[in-house]
Amino acid sequence: MTTKPKRAELREACISEAFRIVEESGVENLSLREVARRLGISHQAPYRHFASRDHILAEIIALSFDEFSVYLNSRPLNQSVHDDLRHMGLHYLNYAKHHPLKYRLMFNTPMPDPVKHINMMNKAQHAFSILSERLEHTPLRPLALSIESSSNLEALFVWSMLHGLASILQSDVLPSLKLTTLEKKHMIAHCFARLSQALQP
Amino acid sequence: MTTKPKRAELREACISEAFRIVEESGVENLSLREVARRLGISHQAPYRHFASRDHILAEIIALSFDEFSVYLNSRPLNQSVHDDLRHMGLHYLNYAKHHPLKYRLMFNTPMPDPVKHINMMNKAQHAFSILSERLEHTPLRPLALSIESSSNLEALFVWSMLHGLASILQSDVLPSLKLTTLEKKHMIAHCFARLSQALQP
Repeated sequence: MTTKPKRAELREACISEAFRIVEESGVENLSLREVARRLGISHQAPYRHFASRDHILAEIIALSFDEFSVYLNSRPLNQSVHDDLRHMGLHYLNYAKHHPLKYRLMFNTPMPDPVKHINMMNKAQHAFSILSERLEHTPLRPLALSIESSSNLEALFVWSMLHGLASILQSDVLPSLKLTTLEKKHMIAHCFARLSQALQP
Repeated sequence: MTTKPKRAELREACISEAFRIVEESGVENLSLREVARRLGISHQAPYRHFASRDHILAEIIALSFDEFSVYLNSRPLNQSVHDDLRHMGLHYLNYAKHHPLKYRLMFNTPMPDPVKHINMMNKAQHAFSILSERLEHTPLRPLALSIESSSNLEALFVWSMLHGLASILQSDVLPSLKLTTLEKKHMIAHCFARLSQALQP
């Protein structure tokens, strides 16, 4: 049990405790009652700040998207647009590796209804737009006329590759595959080289 | 509670019940005790067939990989190797869509130690080799000499894109993004077109 918080700190204490509950026992076990129990406060206390369990979940997801967006934007500034995309990709993988809980909250968790949690939805949209807007200003290899294209579609392609790679790198199935040490070492560089071939004119 | 099984059917009943527990309450709540409780049999009965909780988990993961491999191999036979890869990709996405629990068990679940569960490890390796061996016999766009390549590395690239796309298509974050109906409709075709550009000579 954490030290009982003062009233002014209650909101932040609830948020920290919600992160801990999700980390220790999964998002299914998050409830305002459990937050209160672990903080040693009354069952009603968290309701001063959060209307429901979904509201505190939406809040910790929104905070994760905030931190993720700031981290993506902290990549080194580069001259070449394709180099910049590569740095964004490396930052993406790095965030997933070092913040597995927040990464899971953003992308692998049953989320509260986005229509009812506009702030969470906007933060998610903002993170996506960092990639999408970058691709809007990047000259790309032309696609066949029959294939629809837009910066959102290009962002979905790049994101799919990054999300898949980030998940596979953390997956327990990877050690089951008969990969050589060299293959494991070069996985990321190889994927990024193929991604460049898909996109570079 | 399910009807109490006869002894001869016990092993299969345990396996079915293990799938149901994982589906209803997550892999964290799988135990042989819980399997026994739900089947209305003695706590010791499942141990006739499974040495531990990890053994029954390894068994349902292995069964999922089996079914997945059979499904990948049921794709239509094609003349062109790149068309065949495309069909394999579509079968992959289709399996993920229609078997979300088994898909999660294979790729998004804390797995038992592969060294202690050789059968599970071999089934995972086999599913991966379907893609890897196909790529070994496919002429691919050359990469820069500084980039390591092998059919396993190519398979990891294709798998990353497919796994990411399958996950994003099912993710709750997708409806939060401001995508047009047209973009949603063309997501898969666009990703496959970019994947072809990455790979085709």
